[in-house]
Amino acid sequence: MKRRDFLKTAGTSGLALGAAGLAAPALANSPLKLKLVGAFPKGFPGVGTSAEQLARRIEALSDGKIEITYYGGGELVPPFEVFSAVSSGAADIGHNAAYYQVGQVRSTMYFTSMPYGLDAEELSAWIRFGGGQALWDEAYAPHGVKPFYVGNSGMQAAGWFKQQITSLDDLVGLKMRIAGLGGDIMRKLGVTTVLTPPPEIYSALQSGVVDAAEFVGPWNDMALGFVKVAPYYYLPAFHEPGPGLEMIVNQDIYENLTPHLKTVLDNAATAQAESTTAEFRYNNTMLLPALIEQGAVISAFPDDVVEALGTAAKEVVAAYPGDDAVSNKIHDAYVDYIKACALYTKGMEGQLYTDRAKVWDV
Amino acid sequence: MKRRDFLKTAGTSGLALGAAGLAAPALANSPLKLKLVGAFPKGFPGVGTSAEQLARRIEALSDGKIEITYYGGGELVPPFEVFSAVSSGAADIGHNAAYYQVGQVRSTMYFTSMPYGLDAEELSAWIRFGGGQALWDEAYAPHGVKPFYVGNSGMQAAGWFKQQITSLDDLVGLKMRIAGLGGDIMRKLGVTTVLTPPPEIYSALQSGVVDAAEFVGPWNDMALGFVKVAPYYYLPAFHEPGPGLEMIVNQDIYENLTPHLKTVLDNAATAQAESTTAEFRYNNTMLLPALIEQGAVISAFPDDVVEALGTAAKEVVAAYPGDDAVSNKIHDAYVDYIKACALYTKGMEGQLYTDRAKVWDV
Repeated sequence: MKRRDFLKTAGTSGLALGAAGLAAPALANSPLKLKLVGAFPKGFPGVGTSAEQLARRIEALSDGKIEITYYGGGELVPPFEVFSAVSSGAADIGHNAAYYQVGQVRSTMYFTSMPYGLDAEELSAWIRFGGGQALWDEAYAPHGVKPFYVGNSGMQAAGWFKQQITSLDDLVGLKMRIAGLGGDIMRKLGVTTVLTPPPEIYSALQSGVVDAAEFVGPWNDMALGFVKVAPYYYLPAFHEPGPGLEMIVNQDIYENLTPHLKTVLDNAATAQAESTTAEFRYNNTMLLPALIEQGAVISAFPDDVVEALGTAAKEVVAAYPGDDAVSNKIHDAYVDYIKACALYTKGMEGQLYTDRAKVWDV
Repeated sequence: MKRRDFLKTAGTSGLALGAAGLAAPALANSPLKLKLVGAFPKGFPGVGTSAEQLARRIEALSDGKIEITYYGGGELVPPFEVFSAVSSGAADIGHNAAYYQVGQVRSTMYFTSMPYGLDAEELSAWIRFGGGQALWDEAYAPHGVKPFYVGNSGMQAAGWFKQQITSLDDLVGLKMRIAGLGGDIMRKLGVTTVLTPPPEIYSALQSGVVDAAEFVGPWNDMALGFVKVAPYYYLPAFHEPGPGLEMIVNQDIYENLTPHLKTVLDNAATAQAESTTAEFRYNNTMLLPALIEQGAVISAFPDDVVEALGTAAKEVVAAYPGDDAVSNKIHDAYVDYIKACALYTKGMEGQLYTDRAKVWDV
């Protein structure tokens, strides 16, 4: 019996057993064994730890029917090949940043983060209630992969700079570690962008190989100690206002699960989304004052930089769909939604945050 | 056999059955039947619908082990007596706004919303990772009730006004429908506050019995048509930046559940929190432009009103704990957390929302 065939049978037998009390201990004692591969290192705050939390959540909800072996980034497959591994069936479940497979699925950028795009709550709202999930399913279906939103690393920082940026001129010629669409935007402003692997960012800043570096947000940035070598911390990340994380499941595995185990996967993902987003929020919030105590000088970019970033971002976003069919299908609706979000938060959250800072004297 | 005793026995037998294949069909076929009472009317957008979603989510995750009868607000017990019903065991589970029982548990206001306090994501973060859950458990334990956070109605509006507010003077003598701490604050500004039941707000505005009314946010407010009689819509709700919703479970019922069914309740609540917050966010965001098309004039309060609201809010918040032991235990840590949040969102979300509105020309 192939493992694939086992899925529905095992589940159904398990249920029938409970009801009718027939003896079939071997089947009932054999949980479905699944491999979950993460893109991030085991134990890495937030992005790594939440992959393991997700695995344990699925197991606990399955009531002994699923057992998961969790592999951290690079343990079973290379970190950037999580999507391919789940697509091929080399792994059953993946935990990933969706834009890691942007070379294979261009539209997946919309489900991660776009420049001046959606924040964590807005992205979850769009995926769950604005038609995003159906478009995401459509984008991944040709690869035999089913996506679930499992949380957000929250609003990120624009980056750590060795020198203060007082005007647009200060950016021209700077060497910055920044990838993806953020890099495309920075190059339009005259910045030279480089791709430095995370473990090498600190020494690249220290030695002057780069003048600036973007990584994640306070929680993750603090762990790497950038404040000591590049204390000017510019906020927020214009290019990634809230990158989403995904759970991806091999489509054959998912389709053959019992209804209960499908519900378990759906709800484990949804609960993990709530928990991961909250964990990033709490730690990012509480560690920002600690970074300031360590010498971080936090600031927004000067007005002329913000204006130039906005203009460049609009060009990058407008050109993004290219000739990709799903991206084109998403694009206009997504931009309309961003505009509605921008109007809403200007009047609601934006105003409250301005007023609240005054009330609490910060 | 008392139903209470049945809980652990049934679950344990069910597990043992699956493993050993012993015949006990009567037990295995008898799901635990629970009553869930909601504070809000059945089918009422967001607050009502999410109670029913929560009930169905628990059932589906329990794999047939729990069956829930859901009662909308007023069907089994009066809407404001959900907490008492769960405490007494008249109901097993409640879906509620925590501040409805503020007369019984003063500190529960901290888990719902405080003036210039936490927004949805910050509240979830505090409850899950900032020690909030332990304090909430402590506050409800004397009543035999276990609380779970199940989402948020999002940032609310300050209210609908028949006349434009151009300065603090325009508020003096105004009659406004606003309850709770928002009412306490408004009275400090010279407003006369009244408590009008929701179904009567529209006619009270129309006839001039009140000059202004606070209700919820765009999604719920639109349904009641206030825009036609009081088109000046002031944003945001200084007094309730993100009221939390709770699932409460009778402590005896909860403690006697099997580990799997406890996990089911925990995860159903967490998944519902993610979903409810997202649903409010999506609908509030998409309906604000629709309200503007219907004639709503959206605006922040003038600067002198904002300043007076801030001063009054600080007084109200500072005096809040009174002689309540748990409130005093929470208060200082909560205010410290608000200050960290205020600093964080000033630099992160607040700045991004300001910049984003310019980028997308809204």
